Amino acid sequence: MERDALDAFLRREFPQVADDVVIEEVGEEGAVLRLCTNDRHLRPGGTVSGPTMFMLADVCFYVALLARIGPRALAVTTNCAIDFMRKPAAGQDLRCRARVLKLGRLLAVGDALIYSGGAEDVVARAGLTYALPPERSGT
Amino acid sequence: MERDALDAFLRREFPQVADDVVIEEVGEEGAVLRLCTNDRHLRPGGTVSGPTMFMLADVCFYVALLARIGPRALAVTTNCAIDFMRKPAAGQDLRCRARVLKLGRLLAVGDALIYSGGAEDVVARAGLTYALPPERSGT
Amino acid sequence: MERDALDAFLRREFPQVADDVVIEEVGEEGAVLRLCTNDRHLRPGGTVSGPTMFMLADVCFYVALLARIGPRALAVTTNCAIDFMRKPAAGQDLRCRARVLKLGRLLAVGDALIYSGGAEDVVARAGLTYALPPERSGT
Amino acid sequence: MERDALDAFLRREFPQVADDVVIEEVGEEGAVLRLCTNDRHLRPGGTVSGPTMFMLADVCFYVALLARIGPRALAVTTNCAIDFMRKPAAGQDLRCRARVLKLGRLLAVGDALIYSGGAEDVVARAGLTYALPPERSGT
Repeated sequence: MERDALDAFLRREFPQVADDVVIEEVGEEGAVLRLCTNDRHLRPGGTVSGPTMFMLADVCFYVALLARIGPRALAVTTNCAIDFMRKPAAGQDLRCRARVLKLGRLLAVGDALIYSGGAEDVVARAGLTYALPPERSGT
Repeated sequence: MERDALDAFLRREFPQVADDVVIEEVGEEGAVLRLCTNDRHLRPGGTVSGPTMFMLADVCFYVALLARIGPRALAVTTNCAIDFMRKPAAGQDLRCRARVLKLGRLLAVGDALIYSGGAEDVVARAGLTYALPPERSGT
Repeated sequence: MERDALDAFLRREFPQVADDVVIEEVGEEGAVLRLCTNDRHLRPGGTVSGPTMFMLADVCFYVALLARIGPRALAVTTNCAIDFMRKPAAGQDLRCRARVLKLGRLLAVGDALIYSGGAEDVVARAGLTYALPPERSGT
Repeated sequence: MERDALDAFLRREFPQVADDVVIEEVGEEGAVLRLCTNDRHLRPGGTVSGPTMFMLADVCFYVALLARIGPRALAVTTNCAIDFMRKPAAGQDLRCRARVLKLGRLLAVGDALIYSGGAEDVVARAGLTYALPPERSGT
């Protein structure tokens, strides 16, 4: 799937999420998403909340996966191990880069790195596994 | 800390989160929280989203931890490994039970189990680590 | 599978591992294994090494799983998230208690707690996922 | 620390492990280790065991860390989340590449990728956290 098709798919299937993220890059080597930080994502002090970073890593890996397997809304997260390393800078968007390391018949595995604003330091890192639905004939 | 004090602390420090959860039990052996599921937590199909379950496990362990160490807003999640096992039933609240397995000087480690409605099957399981702020004299 | 059958299966399929562990309990609710600590498992200072604790959690969950699904050597670990919390006491055996939280058609998920000697404090905690081989007819 | 000093340190502090691994590269950007596979590391069928891959990722990240902080035998693993993706080829050495993503005062966080023989496919992936001992004056 190309970027525009992925964007339309996200907006249709995950409207709550799609409003907050922009697909910046997507291809064979993975995906880069930007989180447009707003008040809903923040903890007191202006830092982005853990669940928001989890959501960003999860969606970014999902986009990287869909780019490889096409639109399957039914692929679901089965495991995520996330390390929070640094406090994101207040008032900055987050960027996430995810890649697919294994695309099996039943499971897809990969990882994601999250950055804050334009800084090069990693804010959070996640390993993710998705269970893939069986392919339907005709899809 | 007792339940009422914990509830007041959550409402003051994490207002976005506190509206959605109810502390059902808390004590030496851990905490039980209920997530009052609403539209914001749902994915199409009526199932609760992964980031929402992550948030529930994270807050529940935080409450279990605060019950032991008192109000420290600055304790932060450093790691969470979560397994999503079953789709939560649509239109049901979630319950989460968390316990502190290690309370060190710098790190606290524990786990959490999430259930859907009144069912006994586990919907998700998480291991969590928090970094504890140094104790200030006078606190 | 009962304890004696599980023990014989382990000895046949995983001889390197089976010499070091004793199945103490096994049933619907999980398994308890004892690691007979020897020099091969130790780090300088007499503490049990991380890879040894990983092996113990992995085998204990495998035994709990086999008790439910019967002898399938081909079930393989796909994910393990382990927290090391306390240094095991030198010169003590370790005990591990594992349980199966989800037994699906393709994946099994559970967790394990490791204790040192007779102490009640948890030394390590792991969440584990196994991929299950497709059932062959006639098995 | 340079490669020769790291090698000598490993041989002195972790003799059981040092015999099995070769430090191929080490520097600011991380470390590459080779596991010289032998019978002790194998499961029936000739594949490298899970605990062996865990050990390799753990030691490789430890070497990457020591290159940055100098010889501290007391740095200990507190968390490891590992995904096993593919069966390593029988009779092949493994290579592991680890990097330090965060070097804090108390915790160091990073990840590791494991490859089999000369192949480019990732065999396993791990996220790791180490707790760092307080720096002693004079060290």
